[in-house]
Amino acid sequence: MPSLKRKDKAAATEAPLDLGPLGESVGYLVRRAQLTIFKRFFELFAEADIRPVQYSILTLVERNQGLSQTQLAGALGIKKTNLVSLIDELEARRLVRRKPGGRDRRARELYLTAEGAALTLRLHRMDAVLDRRISRTMSVGERRRLCSILRQVAAL
Amino acid sequence: MPSLKRKDKAAATEAPLDLGPLGESVGYLVRRAQLTIFKRFFELFAEADIRPVQYSILTLVERNQGLSQTQLAGALGIKKTNLVSLIDELEARRLVRRKPGGRDRRARELYLTAEGAALTLRLHRMDAVLDRRISRTMSVGERRRLCSILRQVAAL
Repeated sequence: MPSLKRKDKAAATEAPLDLGPLGESVGYLVRRAQLTIFKRFFELFAEADIRPVQYSILTLVERNQGLSQTQLAGALGIKKTNLVSLIDELEARRLVRRKPGGRDRRARELYLTAEGAALTLRLHRMDAVLDRRISRTMSVGERRRLCSILRQVAAL
Repeated sequence: MPSLKRKDKAAATEAPLDLGPLGESVGYLVRRAQLTIFKRFFELFAEADIRPVQYSILTLVERNQGLSQTQLAGALGIKKTNLVSLIDELEARRLVRRKPGGRDRRARELYLTAEGAALTLRLHRMDAVLDRRISRTMSVGERRRLCSILRQVAAL
């Protein structure tokens, strides 16, 4: 009788764990899905050296040129001090630039550089590939309803 | 005419940002939902001083007494070195204890202490409150389908 392959052996000797109430917990399952999505995102965006939060920043600046750091932090739900160091990094890579605000000179308006704009377009195409892969697990109608439910949960 | 309240004023002067493709991205919306769920979890579990990953560990040890650290790290999708320090912390709080393995004495089997078991029961009740709050945004059928979709995305 042929011996089991390493992976089959592990599967045969180790039954899946009992997750108890976690197996039916929306919170736990959202977290597990999010961890997998981040893992796939990191693989896909590694060549561009871009993390998920950096992609969100670039997209929001692209779509809302001249927005303030305060507006951006609010939209992303992150602390302004954390955002400032994220912007520092993107500015050092010449993807984003800060300009003094028109109405309030202490405020900083954010813009994409030409290089940042070109990269962001390329990232959108990469993200669309990942989104199609994720969306294959559901119908178009389910996808629409899922997005709507996730927006409601995010606003809880 | 009565003056606008602070919040209304802010809403009136600052239009919501254009999210571009993020607004319809499952990955982005899963992340935003997960951040909100964690925020609510931290608020609810603050009195017990328990973080989401600690709750997952306690639940998996409760349901699978004697499991190994390797099995637990695999089930949670986290690195074993990270798990070891998490277990150290729970052991110092006398919620979890390690015993040498029966078959492999180098392996460590994990058990809940009586105190850990009592706390885990209390945490399940708190988590059920949060889950009911999240589940109010969808029907029973939608909740079932959502869980199934999230499981498939987590396995991508």
